[in-house]
Amino acid sequence: MRRKVTLKQIAKELDVSISTVSKSLRDSPEISEDTRQKVQAFAKLYNYKPNNIALSLKNKKTKTICIIIPEIIHHFFTTVISGVEHVANEKGYNVIVCLSDESFDKEVINMEMLANGSIDGFIMSLSKETQLKKDYHHITEVINQGMPVVMFDRVTNDILCDKVIIDDFLAAYNATQYLIDKGFRKIGLISTVDYVSVGKHRTDGYCKALQSNEIPVDDKMILKIEDTNDFEKEIEQLFQTTDLDAVFAVNEIFAVTAIKIARKIGKKIPDDLSIIGFTDGIISKYSSPSITTVSQNGVKMGEKAAKMLIEKLEIEDDDFEEQYKTEVIETELIERESTK
Amino acid sequence: MRRKVTLKQIAKELDVSISTVSKSLRDSPEISEDTRQKVQAFAKLYNYKPNNIALSLKNKKTKTICIIIPEIIHHFFTTVISGVEHVANEKGYNVIVCLSDESFDKEVINMEMLANGSIDGFIMSLSKETQLKKDYHHITEVINQGMPVVMFDRVTNDILCDKVIIDDFLAAYNATQYLIDKGFRKIGLISTVDYVSVGKHRTDGYCKALQSNEIPVDDKMILKIEDTNDFEKEIEQLFQTTDLDAVFAVNEIFAVTAIKIARKIGKKIPDDLSIIGFTDGIISKYSSPSITTVSQNGVKMGEKAAKMLIEKLEIEDDDFEEQYKTEVIETELIERESTK
Repeated sequence: MRRKVTLKQIAKELDVSISTVSKSLRDSPEISEDTRQKVQAFAKLYNYKPNNIALSLKNKKTKTICIIIPEIIHHFFTTVISGVEHVANEKGYNVIVCLSDESFDKEVINMEMLANGSIDGFIMSLSKETQLKKDYHHITEVINQGMPVVMFDRVTNDILCDKVIIDDFLAAYNATQYLIDKGFRKIGLISTVDYVSVGKHRTDGYCKALQSNEIPVDDKMILKIEDTNDFEKEIEQLFQTTDLDAVFAVNEIFAVTAIKIARKIGKKIPDDLSIIGFTDGIISKYSSPSITTVSQNGVKMGEKAAKMLIEKLEIEDDDFEEQYKTEVIETELIERESTK
Repeated sequence: MRRKVTLKQIAKELDVSISTVSKSLRDSPEISEDTRQKVQAFAKLYNYKPNNIALSLKNKKTKTICIIIPEIIHHFFTTVISGVEHVANEKGYNVIVCLSDESFDKEVINMEMLANGSIDGFIMSLSKETQLKKDYHHITEVINQGMPVVMFDRVTNDILCDKVIIDDFLAAYNATQYLIDKGFRKIGLISTVDYVSVGKHRTDGYCKALQSNEIPVDDKMILKIEDTNDFEKEIEQLFQTTDLDAVFAVNEIFAVTAIKIARKIGKKIPDDLSIIGFTDGIISKYSSPSITTVSQNGVKMGEKAAKMLIEKLEIEDDDFEEQYKTEVIETELIERESTK
């Protein structure tokens, strides 16, 4: 059976990145003439068909939308999917889900694969690697060819499109202020590395709350986790090199792991250490103790994103005017057993 | 913009089921001549394009596979997705995920939508409604046209294809025997209604274990839940009308809810009541107390299913011989705090 050659295979064969192949096929001036010619010749030889979105868009509606999420471990993303499904089905649209697994290449591949007329539009949250690289050419490409994209949660200012976010800064500020109001002064932060946009905003909110209360920000009390597969040791080190009375963690897996490590080194929750998480998922609800948390309202985010996308899809050509909105979804603090 | 008419719209317009439309467009003898003509005329008028799988299959490989899952609330299905992703990506395939939301219609729509050449094959677990209706025409159709399907977990004997299952009967038998070995005799069962295949097998395994130990099966101790949105009252009633010393629940949401209800009516876990769940998900791990459970090994199931599908996809035409396998994945009992 003769198979269709993929972007990935071309990249591997020519020993260049997927992004380079993708840009070369689109005659991007970012790529050297030599590389462009090489990629294009190879693609032609092996019968690679670049997508022709503009062609398919006008005549064919698939009534299908795609949501691209970075991963499926955090319950938050599954709640967003539920919200998207809810509104989409009500309006007669199917939903397909793709995982980027936090990989730039997988994000590019998924978008290329589906933007060929298989779907009408994208709802997406950026992968970590995409945020690190700041390479959004695949998204620009899709938008330029007339396919609407709505970003949620992990978004970027570098792309003009509809967005659904929470005010991560404010939510983190409020959570930190809550701990300060309870009388805590030695408040640690377990966050992500700064290139993850939401992690950065939450870190900023935490710092601002401390500063507003004239509590100095101590870098030793701030842990920024990069590798989410192996961070238990880092948390243990944080707890052993500092004398914290409270912790704000920017997701529920960090929060529940902090509880586990605190227990391991003999600290009682919440008696010795109060912990606030982020995301009101099933872990926060069922963990022992249950976790006080900032609720992100993922279902509402998903519903809103689907509404915005479908609105764009169903607009008549004549009414069309390029206008982008950013919707901010309200968050709330849910008090449970992990804070005293 | 002229939009493509969907199966759903035709069904609504003509006031027939989606299944009827789908079968009519394929000239199924199950549908009356009159209805077939009506549906076909309508489809023609509105330019509905039925999929032409056979045509696309030979020449075009998308290197994409689709996994259809019934829902995303149970952590089990997300672990299967991880397993599928892992193997698929290793072999250069993309994965897209569709949810049937336990609905027959959504299962049909998703398969029709993607079997038009967007993907190379399906990995799927049947929706509850499909199992209730026993209508598998959409799956037969896809297989007959040469697209491979691998079923996992919720499978049916009515379809010939590759399958990946656990021995639900044996796993339930062993879990029940474990409770009997601990000295319990008044063992309740919280299961699903019988038309959900895995629920039925687990119920049978539970009954068999009791019988093998000469403990009479008491229907009053068996709860079969249909509506998974509102079953707390049913569990409360089970606990109040019986005097159980142990409970076997066929999934982790039933198990964690049983713990909650038991607490509410003043029973201590595990002192007054031991509970075993099914599925080793994050709820079982982080709930308080943590839950003794049968591990289904979803990652392994997903990996196996992806391997089987890709093998079928990459077989050379000449070697092709119709052969179907059913792989049985091992389960194990993970002891935690909810049993004494």
